[in-house]
Amino acid sequence: MSPRIDRIPAGIVNLADYERLASERVDSATWAWLDGAAGDELTRRANREAWDALWLHPRVLRPLAHGHTRVHLFGREWPQPVLVAPVAYQRAVHPDGEWATAWGAAAQGAGLVLSLQASAPLESVARAMQADAGRGPLWMQLYWHPDRGWMQELLARIEAAGYEALVLTVDAPVSGVRDRERRAGAGVPPEVRSVNLVDRPRAEARGAGPAASHVFDHLALAAPGWDDVAWLASRTRLPLLLKGVLHADDARQAQAVGAAGVVVSNHGGRTLDTAVPTAWALPRIVEAVGDAMPVLVDGGIRRGTDVLKALALGARAVLVGRPIVCALACAGALGVAHALRLLRDELEAAMALCGCATLEQIDRAVLWSEEPAHEEAASHGRADAPARTHRACAR
Amino acid sequence: MSPRIDRIPAGIVNLADYERLASERVDSATWAWLDGAAGDELTRRANREAWDALWLHPRVLRPLAHGHTRVHLFGREWPQPVLVAPVAYQRAVHPDGEWATAWGAAAQGAGLVLSLQASAPLESVARAMQADAGRGPLWMQLYWHPDRGWMQELLARIEAAGYEALVLTVDAPVSGVRDRERRAGAGVPPEVRSVNLVDRPRAEARGAGPAASHVFDHLALAAPGWDDVAWLASRTRLPLLLKGVLHADDARQAQAVGAAGVVVSNHGGRTLDTAVPTAWALPRIVEAVGDAMPVLVDGGIRRGTDVLKALALGARAVLVGRPIVCALACAGALGVAHALRLLRDELEAAMALCGCATLEQIDRAVLWSEEPAHEEAASHGRADAPARTHRACAR
Amino acid sequence: MSPRIDRIPAGIVNLADYERLASERVDSATWAWLDGAAGDELTRRANREAWDALWLHPRVLRPLAHGHTRVHLFGREWPQPVLVAPVAYQRAVHPDGEWATAWGAAAQGAGLVLSLQASAPLESVARAMQADAGRGPLWMQLYWHPDRGWMQELLARIEAAGYEALVLTVDAPVSGVRDRERRAGAGVPPEVRSVNLVDRPRAEARGAGPAASHVFDHLALAAPGWDDVAWLASRTRLPLLLKGVLHADDARQAQAVGAAGVVVSNHGGRTLDTAVPTAWALPRIVEAVGDAMPVLVDGGIRRGTDVLKALALGARAVLVGRPIVCALACAGALGVAHALRLLRDELEAAMALCGCATLEQIDRAVLWSEEPAHEEAASHGRADAPARTHRACAR
Amino acid sequence: MSPRIDRIPAGIVNLADYERLASERVDSATWAWLDGAAGDELTRRANREAWDALWLHPRVLRPLAHGHTRVHLFGREWPQPVLVAPVAYQRAVHPDGEWATAWGAAAQGAGLVLSLQASAPLESVARAMQADAGRGPLWMQLYWHPDRGWMQELLARIEAAGYEALVLTVDAPVSGVRDRERRAGAGVPPEVRSVNLVDRPRAEARGAGPAASHVFDHLALAAPGWDDVAWLASRTRLPLLLKGVLHADDARQAQAVGAAGVVVSNHGGRTLDTAVPTAWALPRIVEAVGDAMPVLVDGGIRRGTDVLKALALGARAVLVGRPIVCALACAGALGVAHALRLLRDELEAAMALCGCATLEQIDRAVLWSEEPAHEEAASHGRADAPARTHRACAR
Repeated sequence: MSPRIDRIPAGIVNLADYERLASERVDSATWAWLDGAAGDELTRRANREAWDALWLHPRVLRPLAHGHTRVHLFGREWPQPVLVAPVAYQRAVHPDGEWATAWGAAAQGAGLVLSLQASAPLESVARAMQADAGRGPLWMQLYWHPDRGWMQELLARIEAAGYEALVLTVDAPVSGVRDRERRAGAGVPPEVRSVNLVDRPRAEARGAGPAASHVFDHLALAAPGWDDVAWLASRTRLPLLLKGVLHADDARQAQAVGAAGVVVSNHGGRTLDTAVPTAWALPRIVEAVGDAMPVLVDGGIRRGTDVLKALALGARAVLVGRPIVCALACAGALGVAHALRLLRDELEAAMALCGCATLEQIDRAVLWSEEPAHEEAASHGRADAPARTHRACAR
Repeated sequence: MSPRIDRIPAGIVNLADYERLASERVDSATWAWLDGAAGDELTRRANREAWDALWLHPRVLRPLAHGHTRVHLFGREWPQPVLVAPVAYQRAVHPDGEWATAWGAAAQGAGLVLSLQASAPLESVARAMQADAGRGPLWMQLYWHPDRGWMQELLARIEAAGYEALVLTVDAPVSGVRDRERRAGAGVPPEVRSVNLVDRPRAEARGAGPAASHVFDHLALAAPGWDDVAWLASRTRLPLLLKGVLHADDARQAQAVGAAGVVVSNHGGRTLDTAVPTAWALPRIVEAVGDAMPVLVDGGIRRGTDVLKALALGARAVLVGRPIVCALACAGALGVAHALRLLRDELEAAMALCGCATLEQIDRAVLWSEEPAHEEAASHGRADAPARTHRACAR
Repeated sequence: MSPRIDRIPAGIVNLADYERLASERVDSATWAWLDGAAGDELTRRANREAWDALWLHPRVLRPLAHGHTRVHLFGREWPQPVLVAPVAYQRAVHPDGEWATAWGAAAQGAGLVLSLQASAPLESVARAMQADAGRGPLWMQLYWHPDRGWMQELLARIEAAGYEALVLTVDAPVSGVRDRERRAGAGVPPEVRSVNLVDRPRAEARGAGPAASHVFDHLALAAPGWDDVAWLASRTRLPLLLKGVLHADDARQAQAVGAAGVVVSNHGGRTLDTAVPTAWALPRIVEAVGDAMPVLVDGGIRRGTDVLKALALGARAVLVGRPIVCALACAGALGVAHALRLLRDELEAAMALCGCATLEQIDRAVLWSEEPAHEEAASHGRADAPARTHRACAR
Repeated sequence: MSPRIDRIPAGIVNLADYERLASERVDSATWAWLDGAAGDELTRRANREAWDALWLHPRVLRPLAHGHTRVHLFGREWPQPVLVAPVAYQRAVHPDGEWATAWGAAAQGAGLVLSLQASAPLESVARAMQADAGRGPLWMQLYWHPDRGWMQELLARIEAAGYEALVLTVDAPVSGVRDRERRAGAGVPPEVRSVNLVDRPRAEARGAGPAASHVFDHLALAAPGWDDVAWLASRTRLPLLLKGVLHADDARQAQAVGAAGVVVSNHGGRTLDTAVPTAWALPRIVEAVGDAMPVLVDGGIRRGTDVLKALALGARAVLVGRPIVCALACAGALGVAHALRLLRDELEAAMALCGCATLEQIDRAVLWSEEPAHEEAASHGRADAPARTHRACAR
């Protein structure tokens, strides 16, 4: 199998351009599903605005030669601190679906987190990704299912296919009140299916009855608890990340039960409207567990400056979802690669203009702070700045 | 009597949809009366925005099975912490008027506060509500009238009809400067009348004269004082709530004179423009009297997340007015029930996503706080989170 | 002479309505002059927004009977704490001009501050005002002129005509960069003239030359200084107020040189754009000199709630300019009276809803404060609220 | 050579008018280049908004006669504290290009900073400027080039032509992600060239290869470091300013390596989007180095009030770029002179209304502060204000 030949559409210079173009090209029901979020979509908007509200504090005249954006995580290095976030049913927007996303991500050295609700077999997506030597990591997203036997089989299948980490989504015990999607009705076309879940047992509808609550008497019975996470961590040799953590206590507990990392996420604003934007929650979680395990983040990242800000707040890498799938919709594998390239170019420029040659040099000091840092005041009148400012950038 | 057969209009997925649809269906003069507010409607807008400005702090992986939204108040339990707020003249928007609202509220286990200015006899509305075994509470709203004899007769009538609490509106000694309504002119059609007030004595126009102030020399003479509240509380066996309290001192005084509870309200922004939004006043009043008596709140609540936030700030239940009457206008009893169901579904989802299985587990910790809580810092590094986080959610 | 018979236009329910209607009726060049302000008109807008940003904290169940809005100032009482601000050339918008404004103000018990640039003789305007027994005070606005002899004659003329106070404008040594007016070109029609200034000597253009600055070498030479204010105060038996004070030091100095009061004003945003809104400057000036002399305020007051807020911040009365002249343009004397009546009705309603029966009961406690007042905390649990809350409202 | 005869277009009363008019007259690709900025142009907008968000605190009745806007810097005095910022390729918007800008600036006593990427020979622009006796200073902007021999020749040429200072741009090691310009494609017409750079050696593309980063392996190799600045300062007799400094540590280091001043700048928002607005960075840099060397600022200055605010925050002069080039596009030399005159007239009016007769009298006290100044509280009750308030204005 090989990618269809797409062309990069004219006039695309950033990720938002891909989103705008996709809004015209994707059918309206699928678009409502892909682009929509919960409720009044305030969290979705706040995710974006929270990154924009962080101001950068540029530095000048620092050594930048032969800098790079390489990232180390879980014993592995890859070219840029970006992974494609798990998004279901990608064949609904492009016939090459998840394969194209894998090809594009691999070509640009970004990672891929495949959705459990992918519309392509997880093994074949893995092979598409693995064909590229310079590729980033390949991770698998999971939803919990109370049938542990089935989960165990799924883990075996994922490990066998070469996936390098598991990402358990924990912020969606209920599916969220997605008004735009509900109003549009249909969602993705019926021929696009969760091909990896065909053998999944149906959750029993225990507790049903006329007064039963769909949330508390049905969905909640199938939702995971901390003991399920501990069980999952104990049954796999892969690092297990929890995706959807927004509270420092939950991050600490994640570490306590054996998780290897957390992804600070509010599901792109798709589950709980007015949930806190991820850029606000991130530094608190980094403070709680950042020394002990990697913290990643997603939600509203559209610009290289956003990536820089996330790293400045302590994230080790970021996930980007909707705009990559929009690029897929517009131009297949080539679009995915192009979007990831635009993001990396922007990150490199932003790093250079903030005086950071490597990710290790990025820290809180690249963000404007109402209160100038202590060291700044302390250094008043000192002339040894070149060495000093370099240290200021190191973590 | 039985409800007309209405259908739920297509495309309605939330309460705001009912408001938008009603704005097209209700005649413009009635709409100006129903939807309008005082002055430039800044308080009306601020009521909404104040709930939106509270960010939720989701929790993950907590036990949620068999959770519920049942509420206890005044020795009674009902399925969801919502009451329909008192709104006058409901037959102006639908021929079934207050009866339909009662049927719809009862069907969804919400409470009903009937307006003294209802366009249907209070006894028959009570019977409509009482027909449903799973119904929520039935309360009666009052305006003060200086003829205590007439008030006494009214109380007897209300008690005889089976109402369970009295809600005295105290924030409207004058009727407010409702510019939109004044500009529209007519208001509700003349055939829609306050049928429960036909025998009410006219207040004397004492103090009139060419230089007399309509506010201070006429309306103020008929307005209640604290002694009137004390008299009212002493003459009924029903709990007496004061509706329209925004100041902690007034809440304390309410308790001192014998009130059983307060409703934090600014009359939906209909009396005093730029009055403080209720979401700001609520926590201060809960702090003042929340241990001693129930505090309820209304104003701008349109979403399950708003209900959750009100409870997090200490409200024991919420009142919702305009959107329910809009649902009545669009689809009669079925619309009322549908709107209340949407609200409850949203509340359940929001509770689940914040890790709360019951109302008792909802507290301030579900709201994002700029300053992380002390316990959070104190618990750094502790591994016993599941028990602890459960406690963190208990009041 | 008697007023033309105008009618109150349909649909007018507040002062902003008069402004909107006047914008359609007044010719565009005159409108640019009347409605325009300096620069980008940010101060003009901020004046309004600063009042709106103050939230009221209503009180309930207080005694309101026979309340009133009467104000005492400079040994005189009048029905409402409002004066018409000095606005030049009022015959440009209505043939009855300043006479109609005087008739309307007198009819509603508001005061009048006549502009020195009035288009009607100051004596005849005084007679129009004085014909009404229930009228408010009649004050005269002045601009400084360096010819002290001429000033002395002007003072004599003003005193002889029965004016009760002088209001010296001190915030306009230069006329401001009024972009909208400059773009419109013409301004008021040529037949509308400053009839009281026909004998004023022309200021010498000392210091002129090719490199001369119009501001510093021409206008500044005719501008008053503190010694001129002292001279003026010493040459009149009338109280002298300085209008245009925004800084506490200037207010203190005003008192030191013999002024009897200050009007906190930024000239309606017409002189210096981005000058601080008056609602911000007012409390600081009240703190500085409020115990020693009356402080008044203007700028953006359009609502009875704005008047209430100004009084809560310590103003003794307010001036309202543009909207009154807009009412004049739309409906002559009747429009002026109607606008002032609307404002007073709104003030009465706002007072009643904040539990204040008289101006003396209005203080900072009617404004919502992020920090609850000390007394509130101190009173926790006390049951004697009715007496206490009354005191809380007294200054 | 002499300027083309242009006319001042009708209806132009401020600099924003020139920008609006130019947007209609300049071809769209050139406009995207001239008017566009990096990314979503948030920094570009924030530059403007940050000045607007500073509120002025006017003073009254101060002595203003024979005030002026003369500025002293680097041993030289000129009529107004404004320089035209370096903007490349000015012949793309008007055939008289940089010559016209020089004529206009000279006529109004403003300074000129010629771009190294000028489309006219630096010697002939110098002659155009030098023809006017009342002119402001003539400075030359530089970009670093790693060929020090060529740099040395360039310095000699600049000094020989009579330039009075060097302005090294240090905030553009990469060119910025200018989305609007990239989308427009072409940029300036090909016949408009950097005529002063025809002999510049091409930077070697060291480190190139398929995986090479354009930013880190190409552009970064040609970018200057602190040692290059030190070398440059040592090789010229002219004062060397660094343009693009936003961090206090960098300003201190600039001084340490021999710079004579800094220009606080974010390149008009053209390099790094969401870089901090200059009005925020300015006071921190003034605090760090303002006693030791002059600090200038650019970015979003469009009004005389903006100039006043910049000086109040400690800038010694300001640079204005885009609007001057827009005036050039609309009306050649006459437009440039007119725009600079409008700015100066606005500055004079703003100074007068804040009670400042000279630049020396401008300090932080002209800006409204949430916390009133200590001296204000200390002076309570003192009557010697005229002398005192004058001191309050002196630095």
